[in-house]
This record gives sequence, structure tokens and C-alpha cells, in this order.
Amino acid sequence: MSSNIPEKTIERLSEYRRTLLSCQDQGIKHMFSHVLAGIHGITAVQVRRDLMLIGFSSDTKKGYDVDILIEFINSILDNETILNVAVIGMGHLGQAITKYFNAKNIKLRINASFDVDKAKVGETLDNIHCYDMKDFEQVVEKLDINIVILSCPTEIASELVIPIINAGIKGVLNFTSKPINFPKGIVVENYDITTLLEKVAYFVKANEDNNM
Amino acid sequence: MSSNIPEKTIERLSEYRRTLLSCQDQGIKHMFSHVLAGIHGITAVQVRRDLMLIGFSSDTKKGYDVDILIEFINSILDNETILNVAVIGMGHLGQAITKYFNAKNIKLRINASFDVDKAKVGETLDNIHCYDMKDFEQVVEKLDINIVILSCPTEIASELVIPIINAGIKGVLNFTSKPINFPKGIVVENYDITTLLEKVAYFVKANEDNNM
Repeated sequence: MSSNIPEKTIERLSEYRRTLLSCQDQGIKHMFSHVLAGIHGITAVQVRRDLMLIGFSSDTKKGYDVDILIEFINSILDNETILNVAVIGMGHLGQAITKYFNAKNIKLRINASFDVDKAKVGETLDNIHCYDMKDFEQVVEKLDINIVILSCPTEIASELVIPIINAGIKGVLNFTSKPINFPKGIVVENYDITTLLEKVAYFVKANEDNNM
Repeated sequence: MSSNIPEKTIERLSEYRRTLLSCQDQGIKHMFSHVLAGIHGITAVQVRRDLMLIGFSSDTKKGYDVDILIEFINSILDNETILNVAVIGMGHLGQAITKYFNAKNIKLRINASFDVDKAKVGETLDNIHCYDMKDFEQVVEKLDINIVILSCPTEIASELVIPIINAGIKGVLNFTSKPINFPKGIVVENYDITTLLEKVAYFVKANEDNNM
């Protein structure tokens, strides 16, 4: 991945925005860095550093203007056009992602799902049609899909590499438990739930050791 | 979170271990740092730095001894006793996590799930019983649950803070889209799928801008 903004800052900007949007809904107009920091369990210095990195500065007497900061983060994170996303593998995880995501973001939109299971192909979940994986390339082209989410069984993930490359996909969010490599030019985020849980467990243990 | 080992290193150790276990299954005895690095899409320097941080060194002529390295990572990541995990919220995501996780780790075990939905309470998924959320504290004590995974609707996540504190839970993996704060002593990992997808989308855009 290449960009001048660190990956962790991009993650936090996405999180700040979700919080700010929720504050905006509640009619909150201004927010101090330490309040935003408190909600996210980090320091105000970190918040200010992140916003400095993207070139945002504000009148600190009243805190950040919520509307302006949202717009500013939008300009950093969002494409001008909508990016279309497809989910590959409509088991429990794929269904959870599909149902969960579309309400949240107007610049990223899940507009297709794929499976090999005949019982799932042709079905519709939250208005999203499930296509047969064998039609992947044609559907990607027709629906202008840019990003795929892999929620298929780990065993078949590596079989998807060539179809994904051939279809011209630009980004992959991989939830299977095996990291996948793609050629330069395709962005991949490998994310395994086991890793997150093992991380929590490690720090639980570290906390206990510190308290002995 | 407090520990001498950075969070990102802990995540990578968990990922290395999964790869090494899979190599061990295939009868692979040794592995060079650059091979391990290649599988994970990072540099060999990063792998060596991570392993140096945990104090692991090896005969570099044949690469790392797979069995010994797995044992070493186990000694860092794992508790001596099994940690019990409960899933709160048995919608699609909760079911996906439950079905997916238990085969993978012998030191972390999902041994209960909770819901408020009468249709789910009393049911069993992969031998894991679903309890009524109103019995949370008693069940946590009886089954010695240490960690919870929140896969409930975001709207009710904040209602769970007090029960989680009162039950003596030590770690929380929060998949709802709202970060939750807990008192010091409870480890929290807030993790929203939207963030990951927005991050992929950002770097897709950054790649395209670089190619113009």
C-alpha cells in the first residue's frame, strides 16, 4: 500500500468520521480533540496529530467544527465516484457483512454477491443479488465492481486469485484465515478474526502478569 | 493495553503461527525469514525484527526450525490455562464467529453464547449453548468465561458495559460499529468492518492517483 498517510491514521479517520456523523445526528456542532479522543480510547495528542497529517486545523476555542471536519475527512477518504463492492462467499459471515454494511456508507456500496452453492445463487439478500461464481468476470465488468470481500472458506481462497486479477479488481478485503498475495496494483487487507482474538487474549494475560 | 511487545507484532506473531502450523501439517521442517515474509506480504527484515523482539534466534543456514518457532510463539501468545470466550449476539456474525473459531485454537475456546431473542436462547450451535442475556453474570461465573466477543446490534452495545464489568470479564472484542470504553484492567479491541473496507478503498484510490 502506498500513500503519504499511515495506514493506522486512515483507520482512525474512518472511525472518527463514524463518531462525528453520529454526533451530527444528535445536533452536536463542535467537538474538542480530547472528547473525540476519549470516545476512541486514545490521547488528544493522537487525534491532533492525525488531523494535522491530513492538513486540518480549526479554531480550538470551541473545538472542531463537526460539519467541516466530516467534509474534510470525506475529501480524504472518499472517491468522487461510488466504488462498487462484491462479497464472495455468502455463508454466515458474507450475509452478516452484506446486511451490515450498506446502510453505513454512501461512497462504498455492496452491489453483488457470489457463491458456488446452487441454493444461494439467484437469491437476493437486502436487494443484493447472488451470482454464480463462474460468471464472476462478466458480472464484475457489467456492474463495475472495484473491490471484493472474501468471506468464503479458506480452502478455496487461493483459487480466487486468478479470477480476481483477470476481472481487474483493485482491492481485496480477505477474511479467510490464509493471507493472499496479489500483484502490485491490487490492494489487499488480510484480516483474520483469530488474530484479533489472540491479540485480546495476549493483552489480558499481560495485564494479569503486571498485576501480580 | 500494556506490554513490552507492540500490538502489531502480536498480530503478526498470531499470523506467523497460523502459517507455520499449516507448514508443519505439510511436513515442512525449516523456513527462511524471507519465505515467511513473502507469504505475509511483508519484508524479511520485519519478520526478523518481530522474532528478535520476542528473543527468538535460530540457525539461519537452514532457516527457522518450524517446530521450535511454533513452540516459542506459543510460549509468548498462549496462556498456560485455556481462556474461555463467549459470543454475545447470535445473528449472522455471531454464528459465523462461533462456527469458524473453535477448530483453530486450543488455548482459546468459545464455550457459550448469549442472546435476548427467545428463538435463539436454548439452542445449540456446534455444541455451544445459547444462554439468555439476563443470566449473563451467573453463566460467566459458572463457566469461567474470561473474554467476550460483541456481535450484537450496535444500538445495544453500550447497555452491555455494566454487565461485562460486573461479571469480571477481562477482555472484549467489539465488532459493533461504536467504540466502547471500559475501565483500566479490561482489554478492548474495537474493530469495525467498515473501517477495514474504507481503508482498502482509500489505498485503491491512492494507487490510482499514483498511476496518473
